[in-house]
Amino acid sequence: MTLSHAACPLCRDSGGRLVVQTPLWRVVRVEDDANFPAFYRLIWQDHVAEFSTLTPAERTVCMEAVAAIERVLLAQLRPTKVNLASLGNVVPHLHWHVIARFEWDSHFPNPIWGARQREVSGEAAARLAVPLTELDQHVIAALAGVHA
Amino acid sequence: MTLSHAACPLCRDSGGRLVVQTPLWRVVRVEDDANFPAFYRLIWQDHVAEFSTLTPAERTVCMEAVAAIERVLLAQLRPTKVNLASLGNVVPHLHWHVIARFEWDSHFPNPIWGARQREVSGEAAARLAVPLTELDQHVIAALAGVHA
Repeated sequence: MTLSHAACPLCRDSGGRLVVQTPLWRVVRVEDDANFPAFYRLIWQDHVAEFSTLTPAERTVCMEAVAAIERVLLAQLRPTKVNLASLGNVVPHLHWHVIARFEWDSHFPNPIWGARQREVSGEAAARLAVPLTELDQHVIAALAGVHA
Repeated sequence: MTLSHAACPLCRDSGGRLVVQTPLWRVVRVEDDANFPAFYRLIWQDHVAEFSTLTPAERTVCMEAVAAIERVLLAQLRPTKVNLASLGNVVPHLHWHVIARFEWDSHFPNPIWGARQREVSGEAAARLAVPLTELDQHVIAALAGVHA
């Protein structure tokens, strides 16, 4: 799927709350959906659509960063599962969703794009073991240790 | 999320039509959903839940295989987009979905787990540029060139 650089929202905007970036990628926290507060997105800085377009070395850089975010979520939040996805049907600019999922969350065990399973009383963010701003700091620290 | 090896469907069964395997992973074609015929799954042979549990070298092996499958889908089918995902909420045994998506498919641009967008007349598989058994052969050939 083609989408020009000029028309691409991920070339124009950050795509979320900027957490940390390098010349190759940036990591943002996604604040679009209060049901899933522990939701980061790694966005490849270059406007490429498909993961396999990257060189092998770039793919390793990309996925080691994704894995570092996942490890932070696992260590800090003890989620039921972490979900990883690179879809890009709407915005074909390479980005990886990294989402902590919990048995109590609104859609579990469905994907976040699937059918809602339950109503969650109160704010989902308040149920997390650490505040989101603190979680961001752990992500920054973890990504500082990743080659890029 | 914990699930014992003994109770794990991906330890007991292939998880789809077996296409090719190595000691580290196997690739199956998923035949559960006729809406998405060009759908492969790379299943890590060991019973691990999370991608970040792998060693860096294993992650590279895993994602180079995923990228090889993606390249076959792009080259043979010219899909609108390829979708990659490792979710595992129901079966927390590491597996990667690799799915060719088309503007005409039943759910596009939604994720395959989202809301249906349209009815597709006839078999989706019949719209593909090559038959699925031929596509499998291209996947086998591509994965033969991937380390491990």
